[in-house]
Amino acid sequence: MGWEEIAADKKQRIEKSIPVEWRVDVAALCPNDSFMDLPAKSGLLSPDELAITDSSAVDLVAKLASGQLKSVDVTLAFCKRAALAHQAVNCALEFFPELALAQAKELDDYYQKHKAPVGPLHGLPISLKDQLRVKGLETSMGYVAWLGKYAKEDSVLTALLRKAGAVFYVKTSVPQSLMVCETVNNVIGRTLNPRNKNWSCGGSSGGEGAIVAFRGGVIGVGTDIGGSIRVPSAFNFLYGIRPSHGRMPYAKMVNSMEGQETVHSVVGPLAHSVDDLKLFVTSVLKQEPWEYDSKVIPLPWRQGEEDIVKSKLQSGGGGLTLGFYNCDGNVLPHPPILRGVETVVSTLKDNGHTIVPWQPYKHDFAVNLIGKIYAGDGGQDIFSVLRESGEPAIPNIQDLVDPSLPRLDMNEIWELQRQKWAYQCEYLEQWRLREAELGREIDAFIAPMTATAAIRHNQFRYYGYASAINLLDWTSVVVPVTFADKAVDKKQTDFKPLTEIDGVVQAEYDPEAYHGAPVAVQIVGKRLTEEKTLAIAKEIGRLLGNEVTP
Amino acid sequence: MGWEEIAADKKQRIEKSIPVEWRVDVAALCPNDSFMDLPAKSGLLSPDELAITDSSAVDLVAKLASGQLKSVDVTLAFCKRAALAHQAVNCALEFFPELALAQAKELDDYYQKHKAPVGPLHGLPISLKDQLRVKGLETSMGYVAWLGKYAKEDSVLTALLRKAGAVFYVKTSVPQSLMVCETVNNVIGRTLNPRNKNWSCGGSSGGEGAIVAFRGGVIGVGTDIGGSIRVPSAFNFLYGIRPSHGRMPYAKMVNSMEGQETVHSVVGPLAHSVDDLKLFVTSVLKQEPWEYDSKVIPLPWRQGEEDIVKSKLQSGGGGLTLGFYNCDGNVLPHPPILRGVETVVSTLKDNGHTIVPWQPYKHDFAVNLIGKIYAGDGGQDIFSVLRESGEPAIPNIQDLVDPSLPRLDMNEIWELQRQKWAYQCEYLEQWRLREAELGREIDAFIAPMTATAAIRHNQFRYYGYASAINLLDWTSVVVPVTFADKAVDKKQTDFKPLTEIDGVVQAEYDPEAYHGAPVAVQIVGKRLTEEKTLAIAKEIGRLLGNEVTP
Repeated sequence: MGWEEIAADKKQRIEKSIPVEWRVDVAALCPNDSFMDLPAKSGLLSPDELAITDSSAVDLVAKLASGQLKSVDVTLAFCKRAALAHQAVNCALEFFPELALAQAKELDDYYQKHKAPVGPLHGLPISLKDQLRVKGLETSMGYVAWLGKYAKEDSVLTALLRKAGAVFYVKTSVPQSLMVCETVNNVIGRTLNPRNKNWSCGGSSGGEGAIVAFRGGVIGVGTDIGGSIRVPSAFNFLYGIRPSHGRMPYAKMVNSMEGQETVHSVVGPLAHSVDDLKLFVTSVLKQEPWEYDSKVIPLPWRQGEEDIVKSKLQSGGGGLTLGFYNCDGNVLPHPPILRGVETVVSTLKDNGHTIVPWQPYKHDFAVNLIGKIYAGDGGQDIFSVLRESGEPAIPNIQDLVDPSLPRLDMNEIWELQRQKWAYQCEYLEQWRLREAELGREIDAFIAPMTATAAIRHNQFRYYGYASAINLLDWTSVVVPVTFADKAVDKKQTDFKPLTEIDGVVQAEYDPEAYHGAPVAVQIVGKRLTEEKTLAIAKEIGRLLGNEVTP
Repeated sequence: MGWEEIAADKKQRIEKSIPVEWRVDVAALCPNDSFMDLPAKSGLLSPDELAITDSSAVDLVAKLASGQLKSVDVTLAFCKRAALAHQAVNCALEFFPELALAQAKELDDYYQKHKAPVGPLHGLPISLKDQLRVKGLETSMGYVAWLGKYAKEDSVLTALLRKAGAVFYVKTSVPQSLMVCETVNNVIGRTLNPRNKNWSCGGSSGGEGAIVAFRGGVIGVGTDIGGSIRVPSAFNFLYGIRPSHGRMPYAKMVNSMEGQETVHSVVGPLAHSVDDLKLFVTSVLKQEPWEYDSKVIPLPWRQGEEDIVKSKLQSGGGGLTLGFYNCDGNVLPHPPILRGVETVVSTLKDNGHTIVPWQPYKHDFAVNLIGKIYAGDGGQDIFSVLRESGEPAIPNIQDLVDPSLPRLDMNEIWELQRQKWAYQCEYLEQWRLREAELGREIDAFIAPMTATAAIRHNQFRYYGYASAINLLDWTSVVVPVTFADKAVDKKQTDFKPLTEIDGVVQAEYDPEAYHGAPVAVQIVGKRLTEEKTLAIAKEIGRLLGNEVTP
């Protein structure tokens, strides 16, 4: 079979995995660009099922743990809504409602018998990026060559989520190679943004961004080596965390450039609230992932770190000190993003917090350095997988992995690693100097997540807002802020490009095309500050009115 | 100048750094093989100075902090004894008593004024391996090419120790390249073992091992990528800790193969007691090294982890569960080491602890894999430094870095890194399986530190007992046990070599030559278990009678 047939067969198998009675006429129901009304319009979900899928994960696990909800009902509701999601935005690479319902049934039986949940995620459906192995299922990662290979065991994270009580029902699409911030591959094609089919859902965890935005999932699991959790979060008005390397278990996942350790890809959740992100992180940490994955640091959830932020907030008069920048010196964000940063800054100031300018330190150097690392093998790893099946490369690959760059030898990669470490230490020094200047601790900084609001397809060019943070391995939490508005977000006047790519990015801005597109910022803390950075993100979300706090 | 002249000039400069009145006729005072009596015989140190240098670091900092001792007196005592050490065993690459006394004077003045110490190491002299930069001094690391370069700033660890109140007075010798477990270079030649000039002091932190054994230093700072802290500890009857990567700051130190991150070299102390090791580790952690070195994990000293061990010990009936092995499956240790392991096992059993056999998991694979990593650049890094000056390679280099192995490209190193991670995770699984079998937690395991007691020069061949632990990045603490004894440690009868190197190592055993040589074991805990593993090592040392406990 040629690669086209193998891909077509897989596409068909995914379509067939949706029960006939769950299939709908999307074009008829959603004649315009948005699919957000589809769940309500379709009539497929009962009012209870709509309510369940509109709930937070925190609420759902509480009700599952108290017996108010059955996992089978919750799982069925999310399976139905995920089926709609796939029909609308083409987001699934694996869909397995029968297995999910069987797993849910087992959990309900357990609850019936023991009158207690198996773990902190008892009965909660969680969607997985198609890098996580689920025993018995394929993990193609969008590569034709990897179809037909069925996992003999779970990834460590899958196994620990399972132990915590999570139910699996869908694995979502990614761009070929993962090294792209849009989601398109030769197996199922492109995944769309549920808010507007002309917009990208982001990438590489784009399937997760799309399905969670559509509430076909409540918590999604993504990975991030250059923005791949955070860009889909930003483009889908979601919260998302890029934990520092070593906090969450990545072992036994499928990956591009496996074994590459110069800049680690990390795994983390996307969700509708910081509380749901925290639920995920704490539930995984309770399973002691460091006993299973040697790269995980034995660092349980440090409630004390979260409490430091809480007590600052309770001290009155704001209490947080945050830096901010709206331009990294390489690429000026589009007007909606500049307004997003300004909104966050002014909201925080209005609430008494201390917000100070933050000078991005040599981000041009950082973005350039990480680019060399991504392309360290001259794309050998990626292109060898493509050769196996004969499928072509998707067009965007060379934006992040430029195959014309030379393959590095050991001494060259050591030199890059030396430069990386020196840069990280220099940036820590900048942080200390800034604090000394101010005479107070800077808790985190606010930065654009991307140069643009949710972008039109094939337009994503500049990874630097995300990737500089990957090079630093700092903790970053995406906070959704607002939506692009053609009435206020006018084109820049007297714009002078800082760099060539700056000109390309800015030229693409069109107030009409972006109207309504999600706008986000990222809150960046130092390495391994997940507790603190989440707590700050929660407060910002609360002040913006975008975080529901019980 | 040719390399010989540059080296000779440096050697002379070191000799000149010893005040004339501190020079002694070593050959006359120590006509036999040992130099351990030299301090007493020399008459250079007063009884008070002998007492000071025979003290523990814990005692000294307590007396310095209470004003009972002055740093100038303590520093002078250690400078004198270090001067004797260098004359006897040739251990210093930098010796700077004037700077040290000036620093001590400043600390005394500070104390005088504030009636309080500057930090937890106030006034304590600490010796440094010649990888740590001290502002204004050379850091040649035994390379001729690196002589004449004077540090513009301290290494991070130097700066933090300085902040904690430590005084610097000597930087000690290393083998050319560091990648050897003996200590010889073309600048000053060979460093000897103070117990017997025919024995190696170990390496690469061999200068530290020698000077601390001689009590020319109370705490030494070494580094370890394949045994370089632990082998000198073992060969000099010292305690030493190889912390896991990310616990202690390595930034801005000089190194071989700088930027190599596949297996990280780590930095840690050598001392006469676990309490002194702990003093060092806690003092550094109090300076928050993660604010200065991006590779350090923000993990303060976790007293709770130490207390878990303490409460097990207080629970009666022993309380610890430890695995042990006396052979890694590659090379059978010499009889003194087998007896050392047996001594530890029987002592622990006699005290009610649960000691179970531990199956080394694929150590042949581990040792082979780490060997490929060490030689990943085909020795390019090392040989390019040698070419700069024209100095020849020392003979032992190819034992650890085989330049005939090919230089790896990116995809090959990624594959090795993938294998490393998989191996680490598999070993964690073995640990869990063994615990499941036993129905209880295994706290750590006991293993030989080396295949031999302190070895004769040019005989160190097998790095596997150390390097397998480096590949795992597990915490390891060396505990001195006993001394080789020709009366009991007879040659193996019916010995059949497991491997070619096993035959070579065993053939070298000679009860007469090894008589009196230090014998040690290592206590190995999982990654980042410094608190717990130190506490276990302390108990073992106490039971053996080799740890003085206040």
